[in-house]
Amino acid sequence: MSTVKVLSVSDAEADPRVKAVFDDIRAVRKTDFINNFWRGLANQPELLEATWSRLKVVMSADGSLDPLTKELIYMAVSIANNCTYCIHSHTAAARAKGMSDEQYEEFLAVVGMAFQTNGLVTGLQLPIDEEFEAQS
Amino acid sequence: MSTVKVLSVSDAEADPRVKAVFDDIRAVRKTDFINNFWRGLANQPELLEATWSRLKVVMSADGSLDPLTKELIYMAVSIANNCTYCIHSHTAAARAKGMSDEQYEEFLAVVGMAFQTNGLVTGLQLPIDEEFEAQS
Amino acid sequence: MSTVKVLSVSDAEADPRVKAVFDDIRAVRKTDFINNFWRGLANQPELLEATWSRLKVVMSADGSLDPLTKELIYMAVSIANNCTYCIHSHTAAARAKGMSDEQYEEFLAVVGMAFQTNGLVTGLQLPIDEEFEAQS
Amino acid sequence: MSTVKVLSVSDAEADPRVKAVFDDIRAVRKTDFINNFWRGLANQPELLEATWSRLKVVMSADGSLDPLTKELIYMAVSIANNCTYCIHSHTAAARAKGMSDEQYEEFLAVVGMAFQTNGLVTGLQLPIDEEFEAQS
Amino acid sequence: MSTVKVLSVSDAEADPRVKAVFDDIRAVRKTDFINNFWRGLANQPELLEATWSRLKVVMSADGSLDPLTKELIYMAVSIANNCTYCIHSHTAAARAKGMSDEQYEEFLAVVGMAFQTNGLVTGLQLPIDEEFEAQS
Amino acid sequence: MSTVKVLSVSDAEADPRVKAVFDDIRAVRKTDFINNFWRGLANQPELLEATWSRLKVVMSADGSLDPLTKELIYMAVSIANNCTYCIHSHTAAARAKGMSDEQYEEFLAVVGMAFQTNGLVTGLQLPIDEEFEAQS
Repeated sequence: MSTVKVLSVSDAEADPRVKAVFDDIRAVRKTDFINNFWRGLANQPELLEATWSRLKVVMSADGSLDPLTKELIYMAVSIANNCTYCIHSHTAAARAKGMSDEQYEEFLAVVGMAFQTNGLVTGLQLPIDEEFEAQS
Repeated sequence: MSTVKVLSVSDAEADPRVKAVFDDIRAVRKTDFINNFWRGLANQPELLEATWSRLKVVMSADGSLDPLTKELIYMAVSIANNCTYCIHSHTAAARAKGMSDEQYEEFLAVVGMAFQTNGLVTGLQLPIDEEFEAQS
Repeated sequence: MSTVKVLSVSDAEADPRVKAVFDDIRAVRKTDFINNFWRGLANQPELLEATWSRLKVVMSADGSLDPLTKELIYMAVSIANNCTYCIHSHTAAARAKGMSDEQYEEFLAVVGMAFQTNGLVTGLQLPIDEEFEAQS
Repeated sequence: MSTVKVLSVSDAEADPRVKAVFDDIRAVRKTDFINNFWRGLANQPELLEATWSRLKVVMSADGSLDPLTKELIYMAVSIANNCTYCIHSHTAAARAKGMSDEQYEEFLAVVGMAFQTNGLVTGLQLPIDEEFEAQS
Repeated sequence: MSTVKVLSVSDAEADPRVKAVFDDIRAVRKTDFINNFWRGLANQPELLEATWSRLKVVMSADGSLDPLTKELIYMAVSIANNCTYCIHSHTAAARAKGMSDEQYEEFLAVVGMAFQTNGLVTGLQLPIDEEFEAQS
Repeated sequence: MSTVKVLSVSDAEADPRVKAVFDDIRAVRKTDFINNFWRGLANQPELLEATWSRLKVVMSADGSLDPLTKELIYMAVSIANNCTYCIHSHTAAARAKGMSDEQYEEFLAVVGMAFQTNGLVTGLQLPIDEEFEAQS
């Protein structure tokens, strides 16, 4: 259950702004699949446009971080922010971009380690070493 | 200010279990620098041993994820868990492992995007698409 | 599934302390509907009494913030704390208090923006400007 | 201490993209004050442009939520996400937009109540009432 | 730096409602020390009264959980919620109530383990075993 | 739905490393029940071994904190980290280790109070009293 109706693609596309975004998603992703995130956001067309137009830039294959690394960062944030839907969608996206079972196991091990030391450091309230300060 | 005294290296190494861990940190990291995390944990020698012995395995250069990617995952978790110390130490570690300014900018852009969509999806409480389910 | 049995209203009201709270909820809210939060808390009558007696004061229509604004604040906290039940119940409450679709879209846009900049600022660990300090 | 150098305004504006953003901030906000958030983001010009251009739209005075309400929502998210800098900057912004001491006290009371019931509901793992589901 | 002025005890007690709360804190805790939490809340007298009157009941020595156990629970929540001030104050309170160094080490080990498995479970999105459901 | 297949016990035990861990779980816990956490982690045998071998030490009955207190700490962290599965499994474990309804009510009251004051303190950004600093 959700706080908005998850629109069918055809209902959503009755709004031309939504149709333009959905068409661009299909073109960029080379698939007809429009997942629930976009069909829920379609109730808020301005927000849909702003979110997709930025996501397309941020997650593009151009740039100095490869697409799989970007997905691993997205997964890590989503896990620590506890976003159930996002964990599912970005883990699936990482697999689609080539994440192997071995890489996923190592990813989980790093996440588990980071959580553990985050908890310890926060409990101990340790001061930051001067060596870590940004050069200025 | 911290909830335990951050021990000096010499005070900490009065305990032979601590000395053994610190020696191993120096050997593995090829540096004499022992940062505050380890000097705070030195008050809890069993926990120090367990944490270091696992961290050494998880963050090792062997495996299918390269060391910089592991640091980026660690940074992402630490930001979303809001661990101030960890953000500083792992951002510094990522730079030491070659993170460029351009990569850091892209990393931040992905983190910002992930936070934003985490917030939207959590607000909308969207159901998970069947397409994202693990094959069984 | 929950960690306590969600009591039926009649089972819950077998305890006179619970009945008194439920009667007050019905009177204040002008409805017979007792939602699961209260029927779960009914297993802990002292906690039920303390929670309701405070909530009634905090969310009352008297005061300098109007009821819808209070619900929007409640929703925002619940989203960032990731409380699924609370997001549903307070989004429904906000709608009942007059939140329009346009207001909800703007609310979500602010939430998304806040999440995004929270992530960026936490990643960058920016120092607080002196201009923001409370006057003393 | 931060993970990037917080640039002086003049150093930052050596980059024409940064100067254009800073000029727009000054024009929109009708002040010469450029706070640390923008001076930190100036190290990442593309991210600076994207963040400001969206923030300007989201927090604009046009629309169905008034500017103070938007600040209260921003504060609520920032508190629950524990973003120290953001709490300071948006509490200051809310005061600048007219938040009274009485409104701040009521805001804090709602935040405290929301945190408390978020914790209780999450502990009890209560199921969502059908009455809260979005109409479809 | 804080978002309100932390009042001196004498300034705060100019308000008779604040004075009554501070007198009760001194009587219950058998100390003249009024820590910053109460001196900050003194700007919001109604919230101060409500918070203290409830805290006094919840943390009282009567009941089935002993005072140290309650402090350990309080510390654990504060660490996971990342409340710097609360971690400091409740770790100090736990020590005052007899927490030994050995107990603190074990506490930290449990916290670290819980964080780690929280991260793994959230990453894996595991379904809840029927065996864990509350009997009904 | 999960991001990995939750393996049946027999499928999981086809891997001898998994079988060794499962046998040890059964021996230590004196039960044949292997809950989903371990059956999900069985897809990542190295992570399974590392997690169980540490959990067994941390949660052992030896030491200065009794097993029920450890479970209460685990529950508190899991609630504040919002780990649905962990809340269910550790609440069930606490009940199995003797947590009474009265103790659970008091536990929830402390959790609710901690959440509330965490929110207030974070909102007010109160400075830490010198009295709380660790002696050095």
